[in-house]
Amino acid sequence: MLNAILASTSTVHGSDFLEYLLPELKELFKDKQNILFIPYARPGGISYNEYTNNVKMTLAKINKSVSGIHEFDDPVNAIDQAEGIFVGGGNTFVLTKTLYDFDIVNRLKDVILNGTPYLGTSAGSNIGGQTIGTTNDMPIVYPPSFKALGIVPFNINPHYLDPDPSSTHMGETRETRINEFHEFNDIPVIGLREGSFIRLKGLKATLKGRKRARLFRKGIEPIELEVNTSLV
Amino acid sequence: MLNAILASTSTVHGSDFLEYLLPELKELFKDKQNILFIPYARPGGISYNEYTNNVKMTLAKINKSVSGIHEFDDPVNAIDQAEGIFVGGGNTFVLTKTLYDFDIVNRLKDVILNGTPYLGTSAGSNIGGQTIGTTNDMPIVYPPSFKALGIVPFNINPHYLDPDPSSTHMGETRETRINEFHEFNDIPVIGLREGSFIRLKGLKATLKGRKRARLFRKGIEPIELEVNTSLV
Repeated sequence: MLNAILASTSTVHGSDFLEYLLPELKELFKDKQNILFIPYARPGGISYNEYTNNVKMTLAKINKSVSGIHEFDDPVNAIDQAEGIFVGGGNTFVLTKTLYDFDIVNRLKDVILNGTPYLGTSAGSNIGGQTIGTTNDMPIVYPPSFKALGIVPFNINPHYLDPDPSSTHMGETRETRINEFHEFNDIPVIGLREGSFIRLKGLKATLKGRKRARLFRKGIEPIELEVNTSLV
Repeated sequence: MLNAILASTSTVHGSDFLEYLLPELKELFKDKQNILFIPYARPGGISYNEYTNNVKMTLAKINKSVSGIHEFDDPVNAIDQAEGIFVGGGNTFVLTKTLYDFDIVNRLKDVILNGTPYLGTSAGSNIGGQTIGTTNDMPIVYPPSFKALGIVPFNINPHYLDPDPSSTHMGETRETRINEFHEFNDIPVIGLREGSFIRLKGLKATLKGRKRARLFRKGIEPIELEVNTSLV
C-alpha cells in the first residue's frame, strides 16, 4: 500500500532542516530503523557524503539511522532492501539524470507503490509526479527523459509562489508558467506552497500542512484547495 | 560579420513591447526592409499569427515590414533569404524543441555568424548562448538537446534578478542556481538584468543598456560588469 509524503520544501523559513515534518516522519517511518537516503539532487553541488550526513543528524532526532544510496555497491539492491526511502531536494534535472544513469527509475517507483514508506521534498516531490515538466529548477544537466516516477496522477510545482502585485520584474509569474505548461500538456498540476505537503496512503491523497494549495488544470480556471482536502 | 543584439527582455516595466530597443533596432536593421520573425517561443501559448502581428505593429514604428517564419513553406529558405531575423521571448524549451523539429538550428547559426542582423530577446537571447542550461523557464516540453546556437562563447541568464534579502521563500536565488550550473558545467554565464543587452559586432561584444551585468565563472567569485564593458 502506497505510504508517502510529497512535501513542497524540506525547510520552512526560520526553522531547521525537516523540523516541521518530524512529527509526520515519526508516523511515516513508524517501526522502521534505517532510512535509505538518495542525495542525487545535490543542492548547491554538495557532496553525497555531506548531504547524507546532514540527513543522518536530523533523522537521529527521531531515532532513525540513515544510509546513503552511494554507500552501496548496487543501488538497485539498496532500494529493494530499504525499510524507508527519502529523496531530498536540490536540482531536479541532476536528480532525474542520475536516477536514469543508474537505471533505477522504475525500481524506485515499484517499491514505493508496493509500500516502502517514501518521503520526497522539493525535487524529491517533483519526481513523484508524472513528469518533471513543472520544476522550478535550472536545466543544468540534460536527462534522457522528463518522465518521472508517476506515483501520483498529477504533477507537482513545489515552492509554489503567488504573484507579487508590486513586482516590476518582467519574467513570468509561476501561474503564467504553469498555464504555459497546459498549452502543451494535459497533466493537472498542484502548486504546493511552502509548509504544505501531500500525504499518500493507499488510494488516498490528502493535502496537509500550513497552507492551501492551488490546482491547475488545462482549460479550467485554477482553484484553491483547503488543507485536509482529499486530492484523488 | 556578426551583427546582433541579445537582450535580457523585450519589454521593460512601464513601457511598450520593444520600445526601449527601437533606437538600437534602427541601427541594427539599417538598410533592411523586411525582418523575419520566429515566433516559436509562444509566450503564454500565443499563436504564431498573433505573436507575429504584435511584432509587425511594433516594427512598423521604425518602418520595417515583418514576415513570420510560419508563413513560408520552407523555414530553411526563409532563413537563408532573410534580410534580418528576430527571435522573440516565451518558453526557451518550446523554442529550442521547435528549432530542432524543423532542423534549423545550424542554419540559423550560420546565417547569423555570416552577418544577417539578429535580434534575440529573452528566450531568443538564451539560444544565442552555448546551451539553454541557464534559462529561467519551465521545462514544459522535452527538446532533443540543450545545445543552443552558440554565437557567443558563454551562456546567458536573461531577466537576471538580484537576491532579495527580505525574502522568506526557501526556493533558490538566481545566483544559487547559476552556481549550481557551474558545479556541472564550465561555460561562463552572464546574468543580464532587465533593460540591458549585449551588442555583438564582428568579434566585439559590448554590454549596453540600463544596468550592469553579473559575470559568473566556475570556481571564481562573480563580478559586476559596467555598461559599455567589452565582454570578449
